[in-house]
Amino acid sequence: MTPRQVVERLLAGRPCTPRGTAAAAYAPANIALIKYWGKRDEALNLPVTNSLSVSLGPLGSHVELARADASADRVWLNGGELAPDTSFARRASAWLDLVRPAPDFAFALHARNTVPTAAGFASSASGFAALAKAADAFFGWRLCTRQLSILARLGSGSAARSLEDGFVQWQAGTAEDGMDSFAVRLEEEWPAFRVGALVLCATEKPIGSRDGMRRSVETCGFYREWPGRVEMDLTALRAALFRRDMAVLGTVAEGNALAMHALMLAARPPLVYALPETVAAIRRVWAAREAGIGVWFTMDAGPNVKLLFLAEEEERVRGVFPDVDVVAPFVR
Amino acid sequence: MTPRQVVERLLAGRPCTPRGTAAAAYAPANIALIKYWGKRDEALNLPVTNSLSVSLGPLGSHVELARADASADRVWLNGGELAPDTSFARRASAWLDLVRPAPDFAFALHARNTVPTAAGFASSASGFAALAKAADAFFGWRLCTRQLSILARLGSGSAARSLEDGFVQWQAGTAEDGMDSFAVRLEEEWPAFRVGALVLCATEKPIGSRDGMRRSVETCGFYREWPGRVEMDLTALRAALFRRDMAVLGTVAEGNALAMHALMLAARPPLVYALPETVAAIRRVWAAREAGIGVWFTMDAGPNVKLLFLAEEEERVRGVFPDVDVVAPFVR
Repeated sequence: MTPRQVVERLLAGRPCTPRGTAAAAYAPANIALIKYWGKRDEALNLPVTNSLSVSLGPLGSHVELARADASADRVWLNGGELAPDTSFARRASAWLDLVRPAPDFAFALHARNTVPTAAGFASSASGFAALAKAADAFFGWRLCTRQLSILARLGSGSAARSLEDGFVQWQAGTAEDGMDSFAVRLEEEWPAFRVGALVLCATEKPIGSRDGMRRSVETCGFYREWPGRVEMDLTALRAALFRRDMAVLGTVAEGNALAMHALMLAARPPLVYALPETVAAIRRVWAAREAGIGVWFTMDAGPNVKLLFLAEEEERVRGVFPDVDVVAPFVR
Repeated sequence: MTPRQVVERLLAGRPCTPRGTAAAAYAPANIALIKYWGKRDEALNLPVTNSLSVSLGPLGSHVELARADASADRVWLNGGELAPDTSFARRASAWLDLVRPAPDFAFALHARNTVPTAAGFASSASGFAALAKAADAFFGWRLCTRQLSILARLGSGSAARSLEDGFVQWQAGTAEDGMDSFAVRLEEEWPAFRVGALVLCATEKPIGSRDGMRRSVETCGFYREWPGRVEMDLTALRAALFRRDMAVLGTVAEGNALAMHALMLAARPPLVYALPETVAAIRRVWAAREAGIGVWFTMDAGPNVKLLFLAEEEERVRGVFPDVDVVAPFVR
């Protein structure tokens, strides 16, 4: 199954005909508490396991889509036009190919991130989620959130989780065409929940998560145990969410992130995303917990560390991490 | 099966009667290239997998055993007497219980390490191997190396590998009494082989390898894949030894060590032995390799890093790591 065929099936006859001159949309970034690591279908970004994230509210991507008076797509990021061979421009154009009204139809795509990309929050998730919503508005499809989640996933796996606010679960699904692989918002609201970003390194990671995932799946025997671990962690984290048990949620999220990094460490060749500063931050979190501060961490495929804590601990967390950027996902 | 029963079986009627007033022995420390991580029998230190190490020649432990004119064992380490409740004194006395001629017989044990313990080379392996040899001389048993390997293992698992020089393989064995779980010297000699110690942290690790192993085996699902990984790595490393292929040997040893650390990272709660300096050293090794220097590393259950390289690279390795302590295992 190709992404093109999936889009045809999804649109079910809805035409790719512009309804106006431009359309805009916004989507939040998200941080996974139970990680997405490993695809069962590379072309459709279908995951091996379920995953669970929290959306970052006002931190995300604004996207505006219009027709470009040009022979090829033009892509702007935060006000500056990107060269067509940059990673985001290439990936955006590849996605736009799926909904292009005609071969000579060129898009003008303006993306603006309110998520500080330098802080290690992935912007591709919010970017492709906003792009899917902008396309929906541009073509007047009126797709539902689940359909948009599938559409966004074709651009970037974790974008499937950026269509909703709050806690979001992405069901891996089993269908070959991925029509059952979308994310849904969970009922739980947790106004006191906080995510903190520690900027340890702002340069781009040398190995992207797509390649890192593939290496784990293909070369790390430990990966066979990963799906079982995710299911166990997901069950425990859902129970912790239901009970508002921050200690359990934090412990499970921390363990799940470290287990993902274990898959990279045991890959061949090994992948180490950690910098010396990463280990120092992890140890500082553990020392803070020893000292009675309710703070936990998660990490993605990069050197940066994200803190998880409740509002009541914010002052003490800031005492230990003066440079932390704090996000309140449920506060508008 | 208890250690006591194993010793009875091993001695096969040989009495524990002193043949003289004192006996002395020496055994080298060893560094595992294929790691020992996980026991199938805690009391007998029987391992789940085979392992392979290189002995460190002149770096090791001298042990002198005599009868003490006292009511309890007295243990000296590097000239200073240890309090009976220190870790080494307790473990040594527990081992001496296995060969004690009578309940009121007290030993005087003098141990002197030429291996710099602060450099992260384990001294318990050489210590218990030398103790087994000293007891053999003290009682005049004339046990063979394999029997001494079994006897030493009862004190510390990796001590089984410290009875021989050069490259040594410890066969896990399958027997319940561990009579087939001993180490043998491999034929390969490699005079140019070098081991370098980087002293990153001289303080004792907060969690010993015994507890770390247990936590990996009991809580880390990835552990199920570890025995298969070890067999694959062992086969590749033996082939590299046979062909004198340092690049393959180094790559396999590095990967095996990181996979062991992955088991700790994915344990519950997670175990991180790395310090910021550990990650910095690893990255410096990788950067050196990028620059064409033939240097690899291995790590044990602690923050220190050991370098693996050939004599021809020593000068360049010292250029990158000015503080490295270099050992030539095959040079006398």
